[in-house]
Amino acid sequence: VSTPSSEADGAMPVALRWMGDDGAAGRLEVLDQTALPTECRWNVCPDVAAVVEAIKSLRVRGAPAIGIAGAYGMAVAAGEAVARRLDPRATRELLAEHAESLASARPTAVNLRWAVDRCRGALADLPATAPAEACRARLLDVAREIHEEDRRLCAAIGAHGADRLPPGDVLTHCNTGCLATGGAGTALAVITTAWDRGRRFMVYADETRPLFQGARLTAWELAQRGVPVTVLVDAAAGHLLATGRIAACIVGADRIAANGDTANKIGTYSVAVLARHHGVPFYVAAPSSTFDFQLPSGSQIPIEHRQPEEITRGFGRQTVPSGVKVYNPAFDVTPHELIAGFITERGVITPPFVDNLRSRLGAG
Amino acid sequence: VSTPSSEADGAMPVALRWMGDDGAAGRLEVLDQTALPTECRWNVCPDVAAVVEAIKSLRVRGAPAIGIAGAYGMAVAAGEAVARRLDPRATRELLAEHAESLASARPTAVNLRWAVDRCRGALADLPATAPAEACRARLLDVAREIHEEDRRLCAAIGAHGADRLPPGDVLTHCNTGCLATGGAGTALAVITTAWDRGRRFMVYADETRPLFQGARLTAWELAQRGVPVTVLVDAAAGHLLATGRIAACIVGADRIAANGDTANKIGTYSVAVLARHHGVPFYVAAPSSTFDFQLPSGSQIPIEHRQPEEITRGFGRQTVPSGVKVYNPAFDVTPHELIAGFITERGVITPPFVDNLRSRLGAG
Repeated sequence: VSTPSSEADGAMPVALRWMGDDGAAGRLEVLDQTALPTECRWNVCPDVAAVVEAIKSLRVRGAPAIGIAGAYGMAVAAGEAVARRLDPRATRELLAEHAESLASARPTAVNLRWAVDRCRGALADLPATAPAEACRARLLDVAREIHEEDRRLCAAIGAHGADRLPPGDVLTHCNTGCLATGGAGTALAVITTAWDRGRRFMVYADETRPLFQGARLTAWELAQRGVPVTVLVDAAAGHLLATGRIAACIVGADRIAANGDTANKIGTYSVAVLARHHGVPFYVAAPSSTFDFQLPSGSQIPIEHRQPEEITRGFGRQTVPSGVKVYNPAFDVTPHELIAGFITERGVITPPFVDNLRSRLGAG
Repeated sequence: VSTPSSEADGAMPVALRWMGDDGAAGRLEVLDQTALPTECRWNVCPDVAAVVEAIKSLRVRGAPAIGIAGAYGMAVAAGEAVARRLDPRATRELLAEHAESLASARPTAVNLRWAVDRCRGALADLPATAPAEACRARLLDVAREIHEEDRRLCAAIGAHGADRLPPGDVLTHCNTGCLATGGAGTALAVITTAWDRGRRFMVYADETRPLFQGARLTAWELAQRGVPVTVLVDAAAGHLLATGRIAACIVGADRIAANGDTANKIGTYSVAVLARHHGVPFYVAAPSSTFDFQLPSGSQIPIEHRQPEEITRGFGRQTVPSGVKVYNPAFDVTPHELIAGFITERGVITPPFVDNLRSRLGAG
C-alpha cells in the first residue's frame, strides 16, 4: 500500500477536518458540500446532532467520508460527556445512544456503521471505569486512524486502477473523489492518478440528478486539479457512449454484496446497462470496507428513498407541479454481471466474483 | 381517422392559438412553456422575429407544435407585408425570407420545415399578382388546416396506440401531449386515450433534463387530466425498470428516418436501451409527417447542440463551476432495432421497418 504524495495532498480539497487540539478546544468541521461549487463554507459540528444533520442533509457525503464523519462524531459525543462531567457509566450510556444515531443517519452505505462499530469496539477494549476524557482521546485516535487509513486506501486504489484504465475518455457518475473520501477518492483517484502519470483524456461527468454531485463536486474537484472535465445530463450518457469515444466507465460504491452486486448513487445501474450495450468496460472502485460479506446478493441491500423536494425544486425553481407524486430512490443496485472488475486497495478483482472477492478480501 | 371528442378538447390545454379575426387584428399567441408549471402566461407574437424567438427559446416546443407555429408564423409574415403595404413582388420576397428563418429556427424536427414548405407550396399556387391580403388569407387557411389535421392525427394515434398498450404501468420521456402538438399529443394521446377507455395504470414521467419537459409539462398535463403521474429523475429509469412494474415505454419523435431510426429528446436512446435490457417493449408515437423518407438512416439526422447554460444553471442555482465544459446535445437517435413499433395515425407499424414504413406511410 503506497501513500499519497504530500504535494497532491496539499492541492486536494478535503471533506472534513479536526481543528484545534485533542482537548475541549478540538472540533469537527465539515465542508458544506451543498453550497458547492459557488461557495466554500465550513460548518462546525458542536454536537452529535450537528454531525447527524450534516450526514443526513448531505453536507458531508460519499460512503468513505461519512464513515470518517461518523467516527469523528463519536469523538464529538465523548466531548459532550466530558463537558457534562458524566461518570464512566453515564458516559458509556451516552456514547451507546449517540453511536446508534450516527450509525443509522443513512441506511445504504456500509462504511458508516462499519466505522461506528470500530469505535464501539475500541470503547469495549477500554476498562469500564475509564473516564470520559479517556474515551474521548481513544475515539479521536480511532477516527484519525480511519481517516489516515482511508487516505492510504485511496492512494492504493488509484495506483491499481490507473494501470487498468484503457486509453481513451472516461465516463463517471456522482462524486467519488476527495470530497467523498478521506483521501484522493475511489473512482476519481483512479482517474487523477492516471492523469498524474501522464495519461491524457477527457473525463465526462454525469451531472447526477437530483443533487448534482457530478456537476457540482466532480467537475469542481477535477477543475481544481487541472484535469479536463465535461459535464453532461445523465440522460445524455447513452448518446455519448454511442459516439464511441468512451473507453471505460468507472464509479464508486456505497455497499457491495458478497456476489459483487453493487449499490451506488441512483443512475449507476443505468450507466452499467448502457456500458454493456456498447461493449465498454464498467469498473467499480471501492475499498474493501465497502464489501458486506453478510449479504449474499444485492437484493438485500436497503435502498434509501429521499424527500420529493430534491426533485420537485430542481435546485432553485419549482419544476414539478404541486401535488404530483415523486419517485426518489437515492441508490440503485448494479448486478455483478455488468461489472468488469472491482478496483480495491488490494488490486483489481475480476470474475468469478463470489470466489475471487472472498479469497482476496473476505479474509481481511 | 377519427376526431377527438369535444369534451376532451375542452379540458385540454393548448400550446398556441390564433386570436381575433382573419384581418389585421388577428394575432398568434403562444403559451410560454418555459414558465410552466408555476405560471400560465400567453405571449403575443407581433412579428416573425417573435415567432422565431418563441421556437428557439422553447416557449413553444414539440415537433408537431413547432410545425403549426411555423405555419401561423407565415401568416404573421404576410400580415407584416400587409401592414407595410408591400406590392405583390415585395410581398413574395419578404415571405421567402421569413420562410427560411422560420424553417431553420430548429434543425432536428422535420415538422417545422415540412409545415413551412406546405405554406410555400400554397403561395406558389397563388397567382404572382396576388396582393399581400390574399397571401395572408391563404397562409392563415393553411395554418388552420395543419392545426386541425394535427388535432385529428393525434386522436387517431391515441386510438391506435390505446389498443396496443399492454396492461401495467407506463414510462415516458419528455413531453408529447397537448403542449407538444395541435391536439391530444402523440405518446401522451395513447396514454390518455387508454385512460379514457377505462384502463388504469400509473404514468412514470422522466423529468427530462436539462429543461424538465417531463417534470414541468407532462406531469402538469396529466395532472390536469386526472391521470396519475409520478415524476422521476432520468437516471432512475433503470432502477424503475428493474422493479418490473413498467409494461411499456412510449415516446414521441422529432424525425424518423426511412429505416425507423428515430431522433427524439436527449435521453430517449438511453430509455430504449434500458427497455430492451429489461424485455419491455419500446414504442414511438408520431404522425406520418415526422417520417423523413429522404434519409435512409438516423446517422444523417442533424443533431442540435444547445447552449451550456441549460445545464450549468440547472433551473435556478448554478450547478456547474464556472469555466467547465458542457456537452449538451438536444436530441439522440434510437436505432430501429430497439423499437417495437411505430404508432401512427394509420395504425401501428411493426418490423421489418424499411418495407413496412414505406408501404404504409411512404405512398401518402
